Parts: sequence; C-alpha cells; structure tokens
Amino acid sequence: MDSERVKTGVIGLDDKIEGGFIRGSINFVTGTTGTGKTAFCASFLYAGIMKGEKGLYITTEEREEDIKADIRSMFSWDFDEFEKHGLMRFVSIKPDIPAKMITGEDVSKVIKLYMYELTKKIEEEIKKFKAKRLVVDSVSLVELFIKDEYLRKIALMQLIDRLKDLNITAVLTGAIPEGQEALSTTGIIEFLTDSVIKLDFVPVAEEFKRTLTVRKMRRTDHSILIHPFEITKEGVKVIEIVE
Amino acid sequence: MDSERVKTGVIGLDDKIEGGFIRGSINFVTGTTGTGKTAFCASFLYAGIMKGEKGLYITTEEREEDIKADIRSMFSWDFDEFEKHGLMRFVSIKPDIPAKMITGEDVSKVIKLYMYELTKKIEEEIKKFKAKRLVVDSVSLVELFIKDEYLRKIALMQLIDRLKDLNITAVLTGAIPEGQEALSTTGIIEFLTDSVIKLDFVPVAEEFKRTLTVRKMRRTDHSILIHPFEITKEGVKVIEIVE
Amino acid sequence: MDSERVKTGVIGLDDKIEGGFIRGSINFVTGTTGTGKTAFCASFLYAGIMKGEKGLYITTEEREEDIKADIRSMFSWDFDEFEKHGLMRFVSIKPDIPAKMITGEDVSKVIKLYMYELTKKIEEEIKKFKAKRLVVDSVSLVELFIKDEYLRKIALMQLIDRLKDLNITAVLTGAIPEGQEALSTTGIIEFLTDSVIKLDFVPVAEEFKRTLTVRKMRRTDHSILIHPFEITKEGVKVIEIVE
Amino acid sequence: MDSERVKTGVIGLDDKIEGGFIRGSINFVTGTTGTGKTAFCASFLYAGIMKGEKGLYITTEEREEDIKADIRSMFSWDFDEFEKHGLMRFVSIKPDIPAKMITGEDVSKVIKLYMYELTKKIEEEIKKFKAKRLVVDSVSLVELFIKDEYLRKIALMQLIDRLKDLNITAVLTGAIPEGQEALSTTGIIEFLTDSVIKLDFVPVAEEFKRTLTVRKMRRTDHSILIHPFEITKEGVKVIEIVE
Amino acid sequence: MDSERVKTGVIGLDDKIEGGFIRGSINFVTGTTGTGKTAFCASFLYAGIMKGEKGLYITTEEREEDIKADIRSMFSWDFDEFEKHGLMRFVSIKPDIPAKMITGEDVSKVIKLYMYELTKKIEEEIKKFKAKRLVVDSVSLVELFIKDEYLRKIALMQLIDRLKDLNITAVLTGAIPEGQEALSTTGIIEFLTDSVIKLDFVPVAEEFKRTLTVRKMRRTDHSILIHPFEITKEGVKVIEIVE
Amino acid sequence: MDSERVKTGVIGLDDKIEGGFIRGSINFVTGTTGTGKTAFCASFLYAGIMKGEKGLYITTEEREEDIKADIRSMFSWDFDEFEKHGLMRFVSIKPDIPAKMITGEDVSKVIKLYMYELTKKIEEEIKKFKAKRLVVDSVSLVELFIKDEYLRKIALMQLIDRLKDLNITAVLTGAIPEGQEALSTTGIIEFLTDSVIKLDFVPVAEEFKRTLTVRKMRRTDHSILIHPFEITKEGVKVIEIVE
Repeated sequence: MDSERVKTGVIGLDDKIEGGFIRGSINFVTGTTGTGKTAFCASFLYAGIMKGEKGLYITTEEREEDIKADIRSMFSWDFDEFEKHGLMRFVSIKPDIPAKMITGEDVSKVIKLYMYELTKKIEEEIKKFKAKRLVVDSVSLVELFIKDEYLRKIALMQLIDRLKDLNITAVLTGAIPEGQEALSTTGIIEFLTDSVIKLDFVPVAEEFKRTLTVRKMRRTDHSILIHPFEITKEGVKVIEIVE
Repeated sequence: MDSERVKTGVIGLDDKIEGGFIRGSINFVTGTTGTGKTAFCASFLYAGIMKGEKGLYITTEEREEDIKADIRSMFSWDFDEFEKHGLMRFVSIKPDIPAKMITGEDVSKVIKLYMYELTKKIEEEIKKFKAKRLVVDSVSLVELFIKDEYLRKIALMQLIDRLKDLNITAVLTGAIPEGQEALSTTGIIEFLTDSVIKLDFVPVAEEFKRTLTVRKMRRTDHSILIHPFEITKEGVKVIEIVE
Repeated sequence: MDSERVKTGVIGLDDKIEGGFIRGSINFVTGTTGTGKTAFCASFLYAGIMKGEKGLYITTEEREEDIKADIRSMFSWDFDEFEKHGLMRFVSIKPDIPAKMITGEDVSKVIKLYMYELTKKIEEEIKKFKAKRLVVDSVSLVELFIKDEYLRKIALMQLIDRLKDLNITAVLTGAIPEGQEALSTTGIIEFLTDSVIKLDFVPVAEEFKRTLTVRKMRRTDHSILIHPFEITKEGVKVIEIVE
Repeated sequence: MDSERVKTGVIGLDDKIEGGFIRGSINFVTGTTGTGKTAFCASFLYAGIMKGEKGLYITTEEREEDIKADIRSMFSWDFDEFEKHGLMRFVSIKPDIPAKMITGEDVSKVIKLYMYELTKKIEEEIKKFKAKRLVVDSVSLVELFIKDEYLRKIALMQLIDRLKDLNITAVLTGAIPEGQEALSTTGIIEFLTDSVIKLDFVPVAEEFKRTLTVRKMRRTDHSILIHPFEITKEGVKVIEIVE
Repeated sequence: MDSERVKTGVIGLDDKIEGGFIRGSINFVTGTTGTGKTAFCASFLYAGIMKGEKGLYITTEEREEDIKADIRSMFSWDFDEFEKHGLMRFVSIKPDIPAKMITGEDVSKVIKLYMYELTKKIEEEIKKFKAKRLVVDSVSLVELFIKDEYLRKIALMQLIDRLKDLNITAVLTGAIPEGQEALSTTGIIEFLTDSVIKLDFVPVAEEFKRTLTVRKMRRTDHSILIHPFEITKEGVKVIEIVE
Repeated sequence: MDSERVKTGVIGLDDKIEGGFIRGSINFVTGTTGTGKTAFCASFLYAGIMKGEKGLYITTEEREEDIKADIRSMFSWDFDEFEKHGLMRFVSIKPDIPAKMITGEDVSKVIKLYMYELTKKIEEEIKKFKAKRLVVDSVSLVELFIKDEYLRKIALMQLIDRLKDLNITAVLTGAIPEGQEALSTTGIIEFLTDSVIKLDFVPVAEEFKRTLTVRKMRRTDHSILIHPFEITKEGVKVIEIVE
C-alpha cells in the first residue's frame, strides 16, 4: 500500500484498486473487439494531462487522424488543443507491408523489423517528449503477425522488459479472439504485466452489457467485483452498484 | 460525433449508430450462411442511390445475373433500371480455377493472382465509375482459398488498406463457420475494419429468429442491444422493441 | 419471386419456400447419418417424374440395386417401372480402390481420377438422358477420401461449378460428422450452393425427433421455422404445427 | 419392406426395425467401452443358431477361451455345445507384435499384414464353415493401430466392401472414445454400413443406465426412440416403455 | 459366473461385481490426480495378504519409502511387518534420466530401455517372489514420457500382453488429465484390460465428493451405480446408499 | 499420519490437512493469473520464520524489489527486517534474453542454460543459506519458454527430482491458462509433486470469489471441501463455513 499511485482516469475505478495504477507499472487492458479499450486508454491519458503528466498514445492499427477522431467522437475533451500545447502526442506506428503479395518469410522479416522499430521509437519518443504515461493500442498486431507462436512470446516479453526499464506508467491493450476464454492471444502477456483489466461485452437477455473486471493487480488489494461500466462524454465510468 | 454519416439503408438502424456509417469507413457485416448479408448489402447500396451516390456491388461468389436475381427476389427495387441509368454497377470477380484437378500450389498461385486482380479491378471500377459506395460480397472466398493461414491474414490486411486509401464507404461481408463463436474465419478482419455488424440466425423454441448486433463501431456511441430484424420488400428492417 | 420454381416433392415444404427450388439451382441437403437424406432425394425425383421431368440418381456409396431397395422399402412408388419407361436412371459411381493395401498416395490418385470421372459421367448422363433433375448422394465420400483438406475444397468447388453450367436442378447430399455443429465436413459447400436444407435427428426426452430447417435459400423468402417431419409411404412430409 | 429379415436376437428389438436385420447387411454396433457390445454380438449369433444358421465369432482383442468365458458368464446358453456340434466357431485373430520395442514403421507393416490376413481368414472361414452370420468384435484395433488416419479409412472401406461381397449378415463392433460425441474413431464406418446401433451407458442421478438407439437402418422404417435395455440370462433385452 | 473370483479388498465392492476381480485378470483403476488410486491398490494387496496371497507393489513415480509412508498414513495396517514376513514387496522402478539437459531423442531411448526393464523386472519379481497379486502404480509415466503417441499405444499393449501371460491378478493405475472426459491418456488401455474402474472427485455444491464407478468388467454382471466412497483406516469403503 | 508436519502459514488450512505440509515435501500451488499464489507463498515463508526456519524466495518473473513490494503491499510483515537479520532471502533468477530479435533456436539454448543455472543456483543458495523452506514462484516461465513440449516435461521432472534430494519443504507455483480445466500447462507437474492446491477466482453473480481446494495430498487425510479464502493483512486466511 506504500507504492505511489497514478489515477487511472476511469471514473469510479481508482477507489477499487487502492488509488490507481502503481507508478511505473505496466498494465494490460484486454477484451474482444469493440469492448471499450480505446476509451479506457484515452481516459487514462486525459487523467494524466489534468495532473500535468504528458501522455504518449501509440497506435499500431489506425492512422493518427483516425484515432484522434475516435476519441473526439466519444469524449468532450479537446485533445487537439492538448497536443498543440505539447501535453500529448499521437504516433501511429503501423507495419509497412509492400503492396504486391509476398511470402510469409518476407512478411516475417518486415514484422521483426517493425518490432525493433516500434520498441526503439517508443523509447525515443518517451525520452524526447518526457512522457509520463504511455498507451500502446494495441499489441494484438504483434500477436497476429509474428508467424511463429514461440517468437511471438519472446517479442512480447522483450517489449515489456524494455518498457519496465523506461520508468513510465503504461497501458497496453490486447485482443481476445471472440468466443475464447483466454486473456490474450499468446497466453503470456497476462503473466508479465503488473495488472490485467478485462473488459467484456456480454449478452444479457436482449441486450449487451459492458463490464470491467480487475483480474490481477500486483501490490494491490483490488476489487473482485464484476463492474458494469459506461462510456460517457466525461470518460469511462464504472457504475456503482447499490446493495 | 462530428464525423459525417452516410445512411446504412437498413430501416431503423441509423438512429442506433448516431446517424449511419462514417463516410469513408470500412464496415464488416458478418454471419453464418443465410443470415441476410446480401440483403444488408443491397439495402446499403439502395440508400446511396436514393441520395444520388453511385454504388458498386462486387460479388466474388455468384454470377452477375444471379446476384441481381437474388436482390430482385427480395426487394421491390428495380436495380436493372438503376444500372441502365448508370447509378449502379454489378461486377462478378470470381477466381478462374482450371477444370482439370491441379495441385494446391497451382491453386495458390491462381488465388494470389486473383487477389491482385480483385484489388486492382475494384480500384479501376471505383475511379472510372466514381462510385461512392462499395460492397464486396464476400471476402470469405479469400479466407477459404488462400492455403496458408498467415498469408490469408496479410492478404486481407492489404485489401483493407487499399480500400481505406480509396475514400469510399464500404461494406465487406464475411462468413462465420457454423457452430463457431468467431466473428470471421481469419480472426483478424474484425480488428482492421471500422465497424463490425453481426447477423445471427438463432433457434428460439421451434423457430429461427434473425438478429443484428453492432459489435463495434469506431467514433460512434452505438446501440448495444441485440436487435431482431426482418427482410421486407422495402429493405432490411430492424424491429423496434417496445419496453 | 420471379424465378421459376420446381416442386421439391417434400409434402408441405414448397409453400414454405415460395413454391419450390429455383429451376437450375444447386441445393444442398445435409445431416448426420440416418437423418433421411436419401428419402428427401427420392421424393425430389418422384415429384419430377410426376411432372414429366426425367430424373438421374447418382449414388457414390451404394450399389444400384441397394439404393433402389432402400427407396422401395420406404415408399409406395414403383421406381423400377419408371426406370423401364425411361423416366429415371440410377447410376452407381463408386471409387474403385484395389484390393491389396496401397499407399495414401496411390489412393489419392485413384480419388482424383474418380472425381474427374464422376464429373464427366454426370455430364454425359445428363446430356444423353436429358435429365431435368439430378441427385448426387452423397458428396461425403469426396470429403472423406481426398486427403489434402485444401484440394477437397477445390474439388467440390469445381464439381458445383460444372453442375451450374449444366442447367439442371440438383440436390447434393452431405454428411455432418456426429457431434459437430458444422453444416458439412469441408465447411465450404454451404457457401457455394443456392440453398442449404438441414435434417436433424434430435433427442427429445426418451425419443429422437426428425426435423428439417431451411438454413439458406437464395432468391427466396423462406421459412425460418424448425419443422418436424416424417417419412411416410407417400414421401417425406413436413408436419404442420397448429399454433 | 420387401427385404428378407433375420432376427437380431435382441429381445424386443426386431419389432422396432421391421423384423430384424436385412439378410446380407453389414451392421455396426457402437459404444464406449463396457456398454454391452459383446453381449449384443452373442445374442445375435445365438438367434442364428436357433434358426439353424451357423455363426462365426471373430475376436480381434481377446483369446478364444476368454471371449467364450465372457459370454458364458453373461448368458445361460451352452456355446461350447454349439461349437462341438459345428453350429458355431470362435476365432481369435490378434495382431502379433514382436516383444522387443520396435519402430512405428515396423508396427505399421505388421498391422497392414494383419489387415490383409484378417480379411483373408474371414473369407476362408466363411466359405469353409458355411457361416450365415458373422461377428467381428471389434474393428477398434484397426482404428487404433493403423497410424495414418487416411489409410485407416481405406482399410475399413476395403474390409466392408469384401464383407458385402460375401453375402453374410454381419455385426461389426466399434469403439467410441469416452467423452466424445462421435459414432466411431474414424468417422467413416457409420457411412459405409447398412445400419448403426448405438449403445450408451449414461449417468442418470446416482446411476448409469444402459440405452440402445437405432441411429440408422437402410430400407427400414426403424424406431427412433432411445430404448433402455438390460443384459439378462436369456440375452440382451430391450425394455418396453409403457406410455 | 463360473470364473474364480479374488476379493478386491475394497469394502462393499465385491458384492457389486459378483464376488471380486476374476483371478488372472488385468484391471485398470483410473482417475485424475488425488482421487484415491493408491488407496485402492493398497486395499487390494492387503486383501490378498489376508488370504495368504503374496503381493507385489511396483511404483513408477515414488521412492519405496515414500509409497510405504503414503499407505501407512492412510491405513492401520502394518505393511512393514508384512514385508518382513515375506508377504509383500515394494519395488520402485523409476526411469533414470541423466541430470544434464538432453535431447528428446536421448530421453526416448532411456524410456524405451525403461519399458523393457520394467516389463522384465516385473516378470522376474513375480517368478522369484511367487506373487499372486500385482499393482503397477502407475502406467501414466509411460503415457507421458513416450514421445510418439503411436509407440505409446504399442508399449502399453505389449506390457498388458506380458502381464496376461503371467497368470497374476493385477491392478494398473492410470491418470486422466484434469478437465478431460477420457478414461486414460492414450485412450487404448481401457480396451485392453478386463475391467475399468473409474474414481472421481466431483465438486458438489461447496464440497468435493469421492465416487467409484465400474465402467466395464468382463464376465461379470457388474453394478452400474455411481458409488460414493471413503478412505477409512480399515481400507477404501464403498458407502451403501439406502433407497 | 506419523509424518512430521510444517505449518503452511495459511490461517485455517493446517487443521484441514492433518497439521500442515509434510516436512521435505514438494507442494504445487496452482491457479490462473491473479488468484493469490504469491500471497500463499509469502504466508508460507512467514510461518517458517516465526518457527526459526529460514526461507528462500526464488522469483523467476519479477525483480527482487518488485516481489518484495508486492508482499509488503499485501501484508503487515516486515520482510526487509527479516532479510537484514538473515532469516529470509529473495533471489530473482530471470532468463536473460538478448535485446535484438533472435531465432527460436537461440532462445531455446538460453532457456536450457537458464534451467541448468536455476537448478544449480537453488542448490547453492539452499546449502549456503541453510534454508528450510523454499518458494519457486513460478515454474510457468519454464512451461512457456521451453519450445518442445516434451523437453518441458523432462525439465520439470528433473527440477523436482533435484528438489526432493535437497530435503527442503518447497512450494512451487504454476499457472493455469485462463479458460482451461487443467492443473498446469504441462499436465505433468501435478503427478510429480506431493500435493496440489488449486486457487480459483470464480464469478458468482456480480462478483468474483476466491476459493482454495486441496486436490491431492499424499500421506494425508485432507479436506475435500472448496474453501473460500481472503487475503488479509495477517496472511492468507481460509474462511470457516458454519453449517
């Protein structure tokens, strides 16, 4: 309980995990497609900015303008303004796969190079920009495009090891394939990160319901409830259940 | 919420997704065989024509006359008339596999060439025809006939990347193998598209019921209900549930 | 609704699929072993004969005399008489695998040759005999004996493509391995055919019940009910449920 | 209904399958270990003897004296006496695998040779002994010890083809691995035989219950009930359910 | 029912299986880890000693002193005393895998040698010691450490064939991997042994309950109930259910 | 019952397993991520210190300062003080995988070397430090990073064999992949250890509940209840259920 905490930015979550994420921890937010992972990430960075902590948003799947539009559409915050004032940076690091159909071997090389670049670029950006919070949304491309299952594990372990050395509080997002009970595609990232937060989108009668569960948080006496949540204009918001 | 919207053409759906698809987005409509994907696509193009937006319907599985007959049989719209007036084009792009039994390697080459042709032809048609809406029905052939699972992923990623560059609003259809909980055969396309709409055909007592769920829609505060729907003469129609 | 229909021969089914199968369509009737597929096929051909349409019954698993005995045992119709009058033909096309145990490679060649012969023979018979209706009962041998999963898909696609060119209304039967939720062994044939009809044999309390479901039918506003059915002397008969 | 029937020997079963097995048919009796397959086989041969039809019991898993002891322990019939009077023959045909650990290749050869011998020996015995009924208990060894999954299918198809040529009424037993929904290990034998009878041993509250289901029977309007049965001194006995 | 029976040593079990195991039979006792297999084995040997039949306990997983301590902790019997009086022998036959990490090939050789030694040693001990009862606890090491799945089957078949030739009443224990419905790892041993007894440890509300089921017993009209049981100081004890 | 027991340190557990772990036993504590395994380990070592038994905590996944912070955050104990007084040692033994992406082969060598080092270092530490209690938290890295499934089994067997020779009471932790029913990744460690304790985190209505089950304990008449537990400041605590 003596570890320093940083606000997660998710309204109603911090008091369920002893005040927030541990400073310097690597946190894993996972769920199937469309469960609210990007909303979580944006809320996390917004909370940092409110405290004067610079935020770096790495997107591996979308263009910078698209991810910004995604966030703008969800929340009332003016991230463009934050970016102009140097409080925030969006960086898209997508693998560049050549247009004509190539062999799996070629792609593998492209991805290996990509992983190397990704790690290096994150390091450079953090040092140059002096970010205190990092989002990598998502690591699923790594999981999907490194062909050898075993090398995939190694690549993720190396990425997380580097991030731990950088003394930044980070949120990585992952992807759970629909219809599986796993926490990630590789089944290893959840053992390497300091926390695991699972977002679900579960059918209840004629409706889907969003829920958030803290599946693990080191050094923390965390909530073990399944929390319903909403995405509101003011950020992701855990709904309090009155008993 | 500031992104421009285009009507989906599905009656009752637009007000559940902040007005429609985002202009320029790539949307994925998925379901097992016979769940109404072609009906969805036709409704989408019809809505465009009503707004003066030209539509291009690429079919990878049927002959042009067959897909037109399919649509004619479902709806009261006169697509032939639209085509004559240059508002609409149907193009069948099927892989041409030689008659005598050949090796998997040969087929693989045919399919690679096919993917290349498919992408190129779509580009040409869009530029020449100045289409504003595109349907690719379906990408499942790609998923089924590229032998190497890994190259399948790459091929889909490349196709979607090209489409994103073309500034067209598109609907791609996919196929979920019966009895699986996945959103697609490859398990990747749902991460690359801007939205995922799942059509189901679920047994309820002695009957099957059609349902539509928006599983993901970027930049959109979308409905999280499981919506029953019908295929009516006037188009696909989401049934309002009175509570 | 403007497509010409041919009676399915299954009593009570036609009014649930806008009048019958579409003329010239390729239809897939699938189910686990013993669910009534052969009964469906015979009913289909019988309905043709009653309209003066010649029928061709290709069996890939039984001898001609056995399949005829099967049908004779189920129905009151005199198919021998029909055959004598040139309204009907039964042809058994079984793969001829040599007696002494051979290698998988040898078998593979035998089967490839078989597929080629099967397609050619069907074409010849149809042209010579001027059949209007075709049954291929079943394609499961193809699915079970082409060793390479990928070539199996290609072989089925080629067979169906040829049949579509022949302008015949066809019923192909398939086999679902017991205890699986799939519609076929290959998971592709259901995407290539114009309709999919699934027969089930489901345990209900102390009994098994036969049911028929139209899982897909192009150009058709088909029933979405799970229909119980019986095999009666007068043909396969869908039981009307009074509500 | 015009096919000649032979009594199955299972009390209460014949009137549920139009009088018995079809003369000359190949029947498959399947179930997990300990579900009563051997009891079924013995009842089948006993019924033949009572009609003056000689019976041949091939065991592939036990010694002749053991299988005879098995049957003696279950039923009040004196099979030794039948054997002495030339009405019955028990033949054990087990594969002879050398004592010192050998390679998979070697074993494979032994098994191929075994399959060849098995088929030949059955033919010889039937011709010499003029048996009218045959039991092969079981074909599961074939399924378990032919290494290549594909050759296993071929071997079974060849065995069944040979048996069909021999004009004998046969019961083959198979084995369903515990906890699987399949009808056999290979998933093919059930398509090749004329009937499939499944024996189950299902937990009901604090007890296991034996049930018999006719899953398929060609040329036969068979029961579709799940029949409880017992193994009594007088033979396997289907229990009539009073409604 | 004419076969000679030997007491199983499990209190309350013998009257459910016509008096006990068949003399000379090979019996398989299986279950997940911690279900009471060792307790069953000890009870079986104790019953033999009470009848003057010498017992041989082969352990493949523990040291002799550990297995003896296991049994001592469970029961009030003085096996040390029995051993001193020559009524009983405990032999630990563990594979000796060299300390430094070696290749799979090397390990495979070690295990093959081990299997050979195991079989030979059992034979020698039985002959020298004139044991009437044998326990091999367990055969799961064989299942886990023979790399090739196919050779694993052969090895087990050979072991059981040798034991059958030795005219000893034996209990082999096996291991079911947690969360699987199988009766053994290889899925073959249950077809080769004369009986299969399954021990379960099933969650019932807030508790786990021990149950024993006779899944198969040749030449025996066995109980088909699911019997709860306890491990008491006087031996494994089946609990009678009063109805 | 005559074996010497050591307190587990888990409040309320000892009286359910005849007084504690057996001195010198190797115990396996398993569960999915975040189920309280580290808390169990710390409680185990604390109980030792209270009895004057030195404890060695090997962490294979975290840095020494991190694991210490983890424990500090959970409990009121001053492990730093214990360490200063020589009652306790924390040693982090993580594999050192080079930064630039390497091949699977290279990684495999690194891990083999690592396993060798791990075993050697544990031996050295135990001898030098005279520890009486050992924790290895966790063996899951071994399970995840030895590529060949078979060598993984061997490596674990060798590690456990060495530990048994060292006469130390040990707790090894393992990892169960989310959504699987297994007790470990390899499916073998549970057969090799003297006990298996499973921690669960199960959803009950809107909440997750922690439970502990003793799945196996040699030489011990152990509880077979599913025990709810809490992580309190005073240690892991089994909740007594009043009946």
